[in-house]
Amino acid sequence: MTLDRSHDAQRSSWVASAQADGTDFPIQNLPYGRFRRAGSQEPWRIGVAIGDQILDLAAARPAPGWPAELAPQLDALAGGDLAAVMAAPKATRVALRLALSDALAAGSTQQAALAHALVPQSAAEMTLPCPIGDYTDFYASIHHATTIGRMFRPDNPLLPNYRWVPIGYHGRASSINVSGTPIRRPLGQTKPAGSPPEAPPVFGPCQRLDYELELGAFVAQGNTQGEPVPLAQAEDRLAGMVLLNDWSARDIQAWEYQPLGPFLSKNFGSTISPWLVTMEALAPYRVPFVRAAGEPDPLPHLDSPANRETGAIDLTIEVWLQTAAMRERGEAAVRLSRGNFKESYWTLAQLLTHHASNGCNLATGDLLGTGTQSGPKPEEAGSLLELSMGGKTPVALPGGETRSFLADGDTLTLRAYAQKQGGPRIGFGDCSGTVLPSPKLG
Amino acid sequence: MTLDRSHDAQRSSWVASAQADGTDFPIQNLPYGRFRRAGSQEPWRIGVAIGDQILDLAAARPAPGWPAELAPQLDALAGGDLAAVMAAPKATRVALRLALSDALAAGSTQQAALAHALVPQSAAEMTLPCPIGDYTDFYASIHHATTIGRMFRPDNPLLPNYRWVPIGYHGRASSINVSGTPIRRPLGQTKPAGSPPEAPPVFGPCQRLDYELELGAFVAQGNTQGEPVPLAQAEDRLAGMVLLNDWSARDIQAWEYQPLGPFLSKNFGSTISPWLVTMEALAPYRVPFVRAAGEPDPLPHLDSPANRETGAIDLTIEVWLQTAAMRERGEAAVRLSRGNFKESYWTLAQLLTHHASNGCNLATGDLLGTGTQSGPKPEEAGSLLELSMGGKTPVALPGGETRSFLADGDTLTLRAYAQKQGGPRIGFGDCSGTVLPSPKLG
Repeated sequence: MTLDRSHDAQRSSWVASAQADGTDFPIQNLPYGRFRRAGSQEPWRIGVAIGDQILDLAAARPAPGWPAELAPQLDALAGGDLAAVMAAPKATRVALRLALSDALAAGSTQQAALAHALVPQSAAEMTLPCPIGDYTDFYASIHHATTIGRMFRPDNPLLPNYRWVPIGYHGRASSINVSGTPIRRPLGQTKPAGSPPEAPPVFGPCQRLDYELELGAFVAQGNTQGEPVPLAQAEDRLAGMVLLNDWSARDIQAWEYQPLGPFLSKNFGSTISPWLVTMEALAPYRVPFVRAAGEPDPLPHLDSPANRETGAIDLTIEVWLQTAAMRERGEAAVRLSRGNFKESYWTLAQLLTHHASNGCNLATGDLLGTGTQSGPKPEEAGSLLELSMGGKTPVALPGGETRSFLADGDTLTLRAYAQKQGGPRIGFGDCSGTVLPSPKLG
Repeated sequence: MTLDRSHDAQRSSWVASAQADGTDFPIQNLPYGRFRRAGSQEPWRIGVAIGDQILDLAAARPAPGWPAELAPQLDALAGGDLAAVMAAPKATRVALRLALSDALAAGSTQQAALAHALVPQSAAEMTLPCPIGDYTDFYASIHHATTIGRMFRPDNPLLPNYRWVPIGYHGRASSINVSGTPIRRPLGQTKPAGSPPEAPPVFGPCQRLDYELELGAFVAQGNTQGEPVPLAQAEDRLAGMVLLNDWSARDIQAWEYQPLGPFLSKNFGSTISPWLVTMEALAPYRVPFVRAAGEPDPLPHLDSPANRETGAIDLTIEVWLQTAAMRERGEAAVRLSRGNFKESYWTLAQLLTHHASNGCNLATGDLLGTGTQSGPKPEEAGSLLELSMGGKTPVALPGGETRSFLADGDTLTLRAYAQKQGGPRIGFGDCSGTVLPSPKLG
């Protein structure tokens, strides 16, 4: 897409905290979210994050100065319906972003009318940005797939289909939670290592609880069942992105996953960050989609000059951990890894086009997970399973603690941001969850 | 559950066609569905099938004589909301069934007031009985799993987890259609047999399109995330059943399914029958859940006396095929197979309890598929892949046609019914779909 004044790195906001060092939400970002007054039972409202504030779009709607042609979208947002805006044509979404940027820019004629429509983020609670219809999780990092494959199949780490098929599977929509929701350690069937083949499995608390560092992309406009989506149209059908923690029970997974894939090892809960960072906000950070030398070109329906030129996104992704002991000692979280989404073996557009290539109908609000995003270096791995080499090399933490897998009380936080040297930081906010003990047995 | 007068095989209805030979919808059935006048754009209404008619529950609501305590449920049904009734406690659902049975029984004082509330089924079009949140498909027939496993892994047909884990995976909710919706042959990636390992796959129309004979169970009441559902509560959380055709692209499946399971080979479309046959209607057909000698007992959380005594359902299931040539010659469909759901290796209650055992939250309107239900005999197989032995022994049809897999123009119909000698037939209605050619490439 063409960049416009909403992307100008020099643009500032009349909301002072939007200029704060390290803020995830400068005026160049403007992500959407659903919020209400913390602790209230009010209906959820749509807001735009700006600095440490939220522009409440219900309170903002009556202000004079909004472009008349955006009335349907502004009315939908004021009514709490983000999906209606996600489903709008790309040009409309671009125009809406520009209107919001102009309204919040320093010198805006709307400042006086909008000042009362700000709500401090610290006073708000968030929920999912929109209802999620179907949730699909992909496996788009070849580094993750290779490392995991090496553990399970040392002779044949990467299956022959990997380089051709954007491998994916359907996940559980109902158990996706917003950041801050605790995650309960699941019970499940496992087959303890070394137990004889004929021995029954055991049922009890997961012993190998893990996180997965993923991005999620929300579908903007869907397609009719039976009608594929050409790659050239795929980008415009993406609304924006969130962080996604695909919590995983590795011991349950190992026992259950053949032949139909992961199920109870994943669907006990997933966590996403609350702010929908729009594809428009990420436009300045698009970079060429480049595969390593020797990798094949995608099949023609998954390949295009535009996808090669700007299909990838330069997006730093991080994992942070704070254990219960660290929290008691007043210590901040430590970073477990840092990578970049541009290393993905498939672009978001390829994932969407592949998904619809058989005529599967996607809908506004569907969530596409990228799969664990691990980089080429071991320290860029997006899961503890990888960082600890399947538990063989526990990760050292402050105070003498170690982790092969997550312990009760651990708070795991994903972060992501796109940023150029000296420019604004297009941040995603935290995607965070604390592990609770498993339910009692029986 | 206790049987009541609604189950009395001698009970007859003032709707004459409910007594017709072979009807799926005698007064002992009373399944719910969503319908509207065919070709209209009216809102969908809830009805109960009776003979060849539908009792329109919006038109029936004002009639005098309904039990006052059922007003909330009758109002919900009149308003088109079946989910509200599904979510009601079991006792309420039982009482509602009894009220509907009494209203439609011969000699009912409500007959005169309800006669105008009947709509011929031939004048109605149907949609899904309720919105489907999440859809899960299981793999509950050991005969199907063994036959399929033998094709892919001759030395090791049944994986070690099969006898312990009710294997399942998440399917696509958005592409589930009601009976009568055509199914478009999907495009997809396949790796032709005999092509060298390093050769790219091809992208084109599926060459091995198949059906799968399944039952689907709708969830009545859901559970809170993190809180498993004990087996003793599972039956009451099931609302009812439908037929489910899990159309499958076998060539796409073979290439894509490792390591995360089937995806595009399944999610291009699934078909269900329109009438929700309630668990109450099926109560007289519950039979002991018996596994073959030598099979292990389920783990304790998946085992109970009640599940052993009445966990299974004696339900005949059939597959019928009419090719385009047969249709042109005016020939009726031929039966490809007949089996019985009581052969399932897992009961519906076990599937639900397993699903929630890790805390996964189920919700009203979720659909649980049983997986292909194949019986112990080869002719009881629930897919063409099995009947044709992977395409090696094509199935002979009238007029000299054969089928290893489905051809464009084929109409595939699933049927099911529970019936005792000389008693009423608790039928499911047709679950039908006709194969359309694939979209044009590129």
